[in-house]
Amino acid sequence: MIDAQSYVRQIAEEARQAASKLAIAPGARRDAALLSAAEAIRSDADAIAAANQADVLAAKDAGLSAAMIDRLTLTDKRIEAMATALESIARQPDPVGKSIAAYYRPNGLRVEKRRVPLGVVAIIYESRPNVTADAAGLCIKSGNAVILRGGKEALQSNLAIARSLSKGLSQADLPDNVITMIDRTEHEIVPALAQAEGLIDLIIPRGGESLIRAVVQAATIPVIKHYAGNCHIYVHADADLTKAERIILNAKCQRPGVCNAVETLLIDAAIAEEFLPVIARKLIDAGVELRGCEKSCKIVPEMKPASQQDWFAEYLALILAVKVVNSLDEAIEHINTYGSHHTDAIITENISAADRFVSLVDSSSVMVNASTRFSDGGEYGLGAEVGISTDKLHARGPMGAEDLTTYKWIVTGNGHIRE
Amino acid sequence: MIDAQSYVRQIAEEARQAASKLAIAPGARRDAALLSAAEAIRSDADAIAAANQADVLAAKDAGLSAAMIDRLTLTDKRIEAMATALESIARQPDPVGKSIAAYYRPNGLRVEKRRVPLGVVAIIYESRPNVTADAAGLCIKSGNAVILRGGKEALQSNLAIARSLSKGLSQADLPDNVITMIDRTEHEIVPALAQAEGLIDLIIPRGGESLIRAVVQAATIPVIKHYAGNCHIYVHADADLTKAERIILNAKCQRPGVCNAVETLLIDAAIAEEFLPVIARKLIDAGVELRGCEKSCKIVPEMKPASQQDWFAEYLALILAVKVVNSLDEAIEHINTYGSHHTDAIITENISAADRFVSLVDSSSVMVNASTRFSDGGEYGLGAEVGISTDKLHARGPMGAEDLTTYKWIVTGNGHIRE
Repeated sequence: MIDAQSYVRQIAEEARQAASKLAIAPGARRDAALLSAAEAIRSDADAIAAANQADVLAAKDAGLSAAMIDRLTLTDKRIEAMATALESIARQPDPVGKSIAAYYRPNGLRVEKRRVPLGVVAIIYESRPNVTADAAGLCIKSGNAVILRGGKEALQSNLAIARSLSKGLSQADLPDNVITMIDRTEHEIVPALAQAEGLIDLIIPRGGESLIRAVVQAATIPVIKHYAGNCHIYVHADADLTKAERIILNAKCQRPGVCNAVETLLIDAAIAEEFLPVIARKLIDAGVELRGCEKSCKIVPEMKPASQQDWFAEYLALILAVKVVNSLDEAIEHINTYGSHHTDAIITENISAADRFVSLVDSSSVMVNASTRFSDGGEYGLGAEVGISTDKLHARGPMGAEDLTTYKWIVTGNGHIRE
Repeated sequence: MIDAQSYVRQIAEEARQAASKLAIAPGARRDAALLSAAEAIRSDADAIAAANQADVLAAKDAGLSAAMIDRLTLTDKRIEAMATALESIARQPDPVGKSIAAYYRPNGLRVEKRRVPLGVVAIIYESRPNVTADAAGLCIKSGNAVILRGGKEALQSNLAIARSLSKGLSQADLPDNVITMIDRTEHEIVPALAQAEGLIDLIIPRGGESLIRAVVQAATIPVIKHYAGNCHIYVHADADLTKAERIILNAKCQRPGVCNAVETLLIDAAIAEEFLPVIARKLIDAGVELRGCEKSCKIVPEMKPASQQDWFAEYLALILAVKVVNSLDEAIEHINTYGSHHTDAIITENISAADRFVSLVDSSSVMVNASTRFSDGGEYGLGAEVGISTDKLHARGPMGAEDLTTYKWIVTGNGHIRE
C-alpha cells in the first residue's frame, strides 16, 4: 500500500483532470447528473440501507453513544431526503459562468468578471452520511471535483451513497473521478489533504472543534470553517414579549445539539422584572438549566450563578446562560466580545434598535424577530449547505453552490496595447 | 518603548474602535473624507515633496539602487496622481450596504445578503509612497480602518501623506484612527501584525516574494497575496500577426519591471516559421534578450537556448522566454503547468480557440487580443487597486474597494420559529 501522501497526490491529480472536464460541461449536464443521482439513490435505497445497517451494528458493538448512532442511522425518510436535496440543488440557478460584472472601458476594452469553479474541493466530516450527498451535490452543481473523507464508522454507508452518485455522473457522461470517496481510514490522510498545494483548492472541515483545529494547523491550502456556534438572543426593551417567548423556546429547545441553537439570553433591564420570571418558568418546565448573572439570579432565584466561562460556552445541550443588560449597546458589546460571530438575534418592535443591532453585531447571520435556528443553507433557499462559515473572507454563514466558485477576469480587446 | 506585540495590539484595538464608528457612517461621509483628503494632498504638496526629498537623500546616502530610488521619488505629477486617485475612488459606487441578494422565503422570512466592511485591514508594502494614498483611500471607501506599514526608506514621505489623509478624515468628522501609519521600523512589527487574531481581519503584503513568504509563514490571520507574475502570450495559428506584434512589444517593453509584463511567448507551430523571425527581430532591436526552445532556436539562431528554469521565470527585465507549441491545448497545458495564475493572453481571430483558452487557462486574468499590461485595478475601472491576488478565494486579480468587504446575512421575521 502506498503512503498517505502519495495516495492523496494520486487521487487529487485524477480529481484535477476530472475537474477540467467538468469545468467545460454545460450546466444542463451537471443538473442531469444530479437528477439521475437522485433517482439512483431512490432505486438503490435498499443497498444503502443495508450498508448503513452494517455500519450501525459495528458502531453499537464498538459502544458508540446513542447520539452518535442516531446521527449515523439512515432511515427511509433520511434516504429520501438525500434524493430530494439533490433535486433541490439541481433546480438552483447555475453559478458557473454567471457574470458578476461586464462593461466596456473608455478605450473599448471589454472587461468581464465571470464565475468559474474553484477546481478541486476536499470535505472532511464526521458520522452523518447525508453530508456525502449534500456536499457532492453542491460540488457537482458548482463544477468542482470533490474529495470526500467521512468518519470511518460511516464508511460502508458513504461508499454505497457514492456508488449511487457515480451512476448519476456516468448517465450524464461526466467523469467518475468528479467524486472520490476516500476508503482508507488512517489519520495521516487528513494532513496530506490539507497540504496538497497546487492540487486541492479548498478544504472544508465539518465536525467537532478538535477536528477543525487539527485541519487548520496542518493546512497550507485555504480552509473554510466554523469552530463554534455561541448564539445569542437579545430581548430589547420594546420587544413583543409573546414573540420573544416563542422564539427563545424554539431556539433553545427545538434541537439543542446543533450550532444555531441559542446559548445565551440577554434581557434588557427595562423588561427583566416583568419578562424574566415568565420565560424562566417556561424554560425550566421544558427541562432547561438556567445559569444567570447576579441580577438574573435575584429575579429568578432558581437559576444557578453563571461564571465567566458560561458567556463563552457552546453548550449544545439544554442549558442557557442568562444576563440582564442595561442597554442595546451593552448587548451588542457582550455579543461581539463573547460570541462566536455565528448567529445572533434581537427581538424588538423598534426599527432604530433593529437597525443598530444589525449594523454593529459582527456575526455571519443577524436575525430580527426570528429564531436563530433558521441559520441554515436549506432555510436560506440555497438548496443545501456545504457548511457554515464564521470566517469573513470568501464565504460567510451558510455556504451553497455559489460559494464553491471563484471568478476570473476576462479582458477582450482588438489589438489593444497600454500607452 | 513597549514591545512590538503590545504596540500592535494597542494600535489594532484603537483601529477596531475607529472601524466600528466608520461602519455606521454613511457613504457620503466616507466620500467627503476622500475628496477632502485629495484637496489636502494638493495643498500640502510642498510639505510632502520636502519630506520625500529627505527620504530620497537618505536613500542615496545609503546607496540604494537607481530603480529603488525611482520608485521612492515623488514628482509633482506623482503627487497630483495620488489626489486624482482619491477622487476617482470617491466616485466609485459605495460597496458598503449593497444587497448581494434579498428575497422572501415561502414562510415569509425575509433573507438579505448585504455587504459590510471587513473591519481592520493591515497593508505591508515597500518603497512606493503612493501606495499609502491608494490603499488608505480604498479602505476608507470600503468602511475599513487601515494599518499601514511602508518601507522604512519611505517613512517621512508616508507620514506626510498620512497627515494629509487625516485632514480629510477630520473634515468629514471621522475618527483619526481610521488610518494608522506605523512609524516604528523594527522587523518584529510584521509578524505581530500577521498574528493579531481577533483584532485585524486581513493582511495584504505587497512587494518582493521574500516579504510575502515571510508574512504567509508567520500569519494566523487571512492573507491575500500574489507571489509572482509569470505572464504568457500565446500566438494562435489564426492570429492577426499585426495585432500580435503590437501586443507582444507592448507587453514586454512598455514597463518590463512590473508583474503584468509578459515573460514567456508561446507560438503555434503553424505560424512559427513565418512569424518568429519577424517578432524576434523587433524584440532584439528593442533590447530584449530571447531564450528559446530547441525549435525556436532553429528558426532564430540568435536566441540563447532556454533551460527548464526559464519556463518558471519572472524576469522583471528585458528578457523573454520563447517556445513553439503544437496546439492550443499544448499552450494551455504549458501555461497551467509553468505559469503563476496571474495574467495570460491569446492572440487569435478564431472565436472557438478564444473560448477554449478563456475556459481552461486557470489564471486570475485571461486576455484575448489585448496586452497583459492591462491587468490592473485602474485599467479595469476600479479607481485604484489595493493589490492583485493570485489566490482563488475571496478575491482574484486586481482588488478594489468591494474586495475589502465581506457580507452578512440579515434575516427578518415576525416571530418566526422553525418547525
